[in-house]
Amino acid sequence: MSFKKVVVAGGGVLGSQIAFQAAYCGFDVTIWLRSQGSIGRTQPKLDNLKKTYEEAIESMAAGTGPWCAGIADSDAPLDKNACLARVQTAYEGLRLELDMAAAVADADLVIESMAEDPKAKIEFYQKMAPLLPAKTVIATNSSTLLPSQFAKHTGRPDKYLSLHFANSIWKNNTAEVMGQAQTTPAVFDQLVEFANQIRMIALPVRREKNGYLLNSMLVPFLLSGLDLWASGVSDPKSIDIAWTHGTGAPKGPFQIIDTVGLATALNIVNQYQSVPGLLSPLLKKMMMPYNFKTMSKLLQDMLDKGEKFYE
Amino acid sequence: MSFKKVVVAGGGVLGSQIAFQAAYCGFDVTIWLRSQGSIGRTQPKLDNLKKTYEEAIESMAAGTGPWCAGIADSDAPLDKNACLARVQTAYEGLRLELDMAAAVADADLVIESMAEDPKAKIEFYQKMAPLLPAKTVIATNSSTLLPSQFAKHTGRPDKYLSLHFANSIWKNNTAEVMGQAQTTPAVFDQLVEFANQIRMIALPVRREKNGYLLNSMLVPFLLSGLDLWASGVSDPKSIDIAWTHGTGAPKGPFQIIDTVGLATALNIVNQYQSVPGLLSPLLKKMMMPYNFKTMSKLLQDMLDKGEKFYE
Repeated sequence: MSFKKVVVAGGGVLGSQIAFQAAYCGFDVTIWLRSQGSIGRTQPKLDNLKKTYEEAIESMAAGTGPWCAGIADSDAPLDKNACLARVQTAYEGLRLELDMAAAVADADLVIESMAEDPKAKIEFYQKMAPLLPAKTVIATNSSTLLPSQFAKHTGRPDKYLSLHFANSIWKNNTAEVMGQAQTTPAVFDQLVEFANQIRMIALPVRREKNGYLLNSMLVPFLLSGLDLWASGVSDPKSIDIAWTHGTGAPKGPFQIIDTVGLATALNIVNQYQSVPGLLSPLLKKMMMPYNFKTMSKLLQDMLDKGEKFYE
Repeated sequence: MSFKKVVVAGGGVLGSQIAFQAAYCGFDVTIWLRSQGSIGRTQPKLDNLKKTYEEAIESMAAGTGPWCAGIADSDAPLDKNACLARVQTAYEGLRLELDMAAAVADADLVIESMAEDPKAKIEFYQKMAPLLPAKTVIATNSSTLLPSQFAKHTGRPDKYLSLHFANSIWKNNTAEVMGQAQTTPAVFDQLVEFANQIRMIALPVRREKNGYLLNSMLVPFLLSGLDLWASGVSDPKSIDIAWTHGTGAPKGPFQIIDTVGLATALNIVNQYQSVPGLLSPLLKKMMMPYNFKTMSKLLQDMLDKGEKFYE
């Protein structure tokens, strides 16, 4: 059975995008926000998204821009006017709501897209629990926290799971669907269906996994590139060329690090050992931090100096 | 000081390519072969390479094929006739020689490109040592064996190092230059210069490293993708989509495995723990919770059935 009414809790970068994309695909969408100040920050994001979608449609029609699979199928002629009309309808239909009870009344799905603050998330779930109809499914867009950590606070662990989007979802249209131990298969399947309905390629993550799919591969890859550099085996540019020429990928590890930011890379290096589920406590203790320390130091030095690998 | 006379020992897939490419770039090249039978196997490879180079040049000129940076610079107009003439000169100039003493007399550089058999390599180095002039540098194209293992058998450990090429070197024009502890910096630099002279992008590997640069990143990447599958986190196609959509790369781990072959992937899984230095201690420990037994079993089953991940 399909969802109709969707609530997005939080109007940050991803929250706004998820709300806009769901509205574009015909869902009845409300964004719940914590305060009048949040409305002042979220409305301009929605205004910009309207412009972004319109410009993407124009350049898809003109053949001058990249195809955005979140907006239309690439294997059929583009109905430009219909797409632009959907953008207008989505924009006009989006509601911002401060009253949580009003926002979630009759909600089929709540997508929690708030800051990565476990305490704030728990408070939100606890406050929302008594206000929800029995049918409501709750999904979290958290990138770094596991849903099992919050399941019991939602009041409905069987209807709680992760739905993880990439940035610029009208273009990068994947959604990782990840359950936790108590999520029922029917709810998992419902979320996969919903992800497809909002034009995402649903990627099922059938066991709870820190890093989902992409980061579970990206982190070891970036660390192995960093390790070659930190151990004095080679230099960042040669390492990048080895990867891009060897695999045809557009970017090597250091080009990716420049894009995601040195601070993020440093975070990965520094926090890697404390991410639960990747290493047993014993292994964590065994992990010799020699190259780790060098990686960390090299990145911190660059960060302090405001340097990047390129430019 | 530049090399002039180059000897390639071994006329296999890579040996033939290295010899042809060096001849194409104006070096005086001899291929030393062990037996009359080897000549019968190598000559057809050279005939095919001549055709391959000519066809690549024609399609570069017509704008119908990929640019081959091993053949000409992409930032200048292509002088088709000059390139074709160089192919003809290279082809005519290549010598096949069974007499080792005659082959290596006055050699500036010997590139050993024989089967990955340590015993055979040692015998070759020992037999060649007394025949070489003092000036000769020896490079090995071995992918899987470290040069330190053979240095003492060459009679000139200071002039011995690795020079590792990718397949289809006229197109995939990288050459990893890797020294061992005794290689002198001047010799290392000479090899970098030589790699550039035969139109390769030289990638310096300044510390001996199993897997060089590319495989040092590729192996952890493939293993992390395999682990997501073996642990039941997701399916190969979803894992590939997560990577290709998330990073813009043309292939995910299972698409790469289909290309390099399941047997190679199985080898990586089975041997990763026993190949010293292939993974840094950090990465190795990080990957200890990986489900290697299941990976190995799943791959072996597919191999037995002759299956691939994609049609």
